[in-house]
Amino acid sequence: MQAKGTLFFDTSGDHFALAFQAERILHLEHSAYQQICVFESKDLGRVLMLDEVFNVSTRMEAFYHEPMAHIPLAMIENPQRVLIIGGGDFGAAQHVLKHKEVRELILCELDPAVLEAAREFFPQWANAEKDPRLRVVVGDGYAFLRDSEPASFDAIIVDSTDPFDKAMVLAREEFYQAARRGLKEQGVLMQIVADGLIYRDFWPAILPRVKRHLTKIRPLFLPIPYYATGAWGLMLAGGPEARLEPGRVNQRYLKRIGGAQTLTPELVTGAFSLPPYLKTLFQDLDE
Amino acid sequence: MQAKGTLFFDTSGDHFALAFQAERILHLEHSAYQQICVFESKDLGRVLMLDEVFNVSTRMEAFYHEPMAHIPLAMIENPQRVLIIGGGDFGAAQHVLKHKEVRELILCELDPAVLEAAREFFPQWANAEKDPRLRVVVGDGYAFLRDSEPASFDAIIVDSTDPFDKAMVLAREEFYQAARRGLKEQGVLMQIVADGLIYRDFWPAILPRVKRHLTKIRPLFLPIPYYATGAWGLMLAGGPEARLEPGRVNQRYLKRIGGAQTLTPELVTGAFSLPPYLKTLFQDLDE
Repeated sequence: MQAKGTLFFDTSGDHFALAFQAERILHLEHSAYQQICVFESKDLGRVLMLDEVFNVSTRMEAFYHEPMAHIPLAMIENPQRVLIIGGGDFGAAQHVLKHKEVRELILCELDPAVLEAAREFFPQWANAEKDPRLRVVVGDGYAFLRDSEPASFDAIIVDSTDPFDKAMVLAREEFYQAARRGLKEQGVLMQIVADGLIYRDFWPAILPRVKRHLTKIRPLFLPIPYYATGAWGLMLAGGPEARLEPGRVNQRYLKRIGGAQTLTPELVTGAFSLPPYLKTLFQDLDE
Repeated sequence: MQAKGTLFFDTSGDHFALAFQAERILHLEHSAYQQICVFESKDLGRVLMLDEVFNVSTRMEAFYHEPMAHIPLAMIENPQRVLIIGGGDFGAAQHVLKHKEVRELILCELDPAVLEAAREFFPQWANAEKDPRLRVVVGDGYAFLRDSEPASFDAIIVDSTDPFDKAMVLAREEFYQAARRGLKEQGVLMQIVADGLIYRDFWPAILPRVKRHLTKIRPLFLPIPYYATGAWGLMLAGGPEARLEPGRVNQRYLKRIGGAQTLTPELVTGAFSLPPYLKTLFQDLDE
């Protein structure tokens, strides 16, 4: 890389950062909640950064959104009602809406400025709003979930910034309690957590909280380019009746949703298979 | 990350860089071939950078060296003679030597200063030199291979810097011709190539050269943390008799070599399964 133009740093790691060169800065705003920045990158297409953390890019979005949307929905026989917490870029929403069985998708985003930025700069995703099955709610995802009808969601997808600091409310015990309460019996939670390779304290800290309410947990190890080390950070969880089986993401399933750009049945099976290197973080998981 | 101390940038991407914070710089040298730098990182342990590109770290080495060593050797019934080109940190060598069938391992490294740095700063790997099966040769790997006995290697592992610029000699057609000539009938080549997500021109450029000599090719898609986007860059190739089957890396195999920290049979099967997103790069591969 030539050190010219503007460099945006993702400084979410303690001793490690990613630097993205912007070809053109399209938007820079301080909303009530965070700094929102949109720029063009030659490698990545259009990039969204929130509070100086890489969030998503047009060219690589599928590596993140496809597992976030399709893996949890595959675990459910007939997913009808889905909640996305965060996800104000509409990226995950567009993938959930590919599932014809879904009758209602609620997208609960805290920061209306993110929704506005998406409508302006990521219209290919924000177009999901034209689908009458999508309902956008502006507000606190935890409070929304806590006050929802019990056993009303087939899947809850937490597509927030990393659950430290501001998004910490989505990694507290009360949140997992509310998730258990809001999920149907076989329902599943999918959450972006944190890269287990560099945040080695984080998973062991949250697992006991999750487990008190969602007893089945599967950390997923798969390549998500440009997310810290690129190695992972997803958690799938559910109650005792949940069926967290990678084999459900098979060719028939992928065909039914119109195909996927970044998932294959073999890759998903691989993602469920934790390398011994990481097993120490997850000693107490049920098999 | 706090912007303090020394930051080392991996600037191998055109519009993207990785920044590593050094806790302590242990070694900085300009050899006849390259800049060699060793430093301590809180996230990664001890890090080796060559010409400002992240090469390897003590904490993450297995994510790179285990696939480089164990996947190619699994493809061969009884791997006896192995050549490593590059790999002067001895990281790959120590993993190859876990294979009891291997009778001779030749490590051909161009830069004697890398070998010296490894002996001083990575003794846990350089200890491989105590194994009488290892022979270290200082010299040009291509020339060494070209002048070797035909059909004398079961596996050739190219553990070089990315095959641009200086290491380009390891990605020319003559190199693959020499590899074919040097490999036994079922022998395989494993080579670090380049991250197909950001170097989209590179794979299509080299594939025809490889294919003229090694007709079976498998690009591997697996998480290698801190290598550019963390998403990949390995190529496995062989002649018509080579058996490039992920199922050969099974539990029995992993047990025989004393286990692996970062490989599971499922992850390897996933690595062989190319996501549709990347298939356009590899349209002409035999299935």
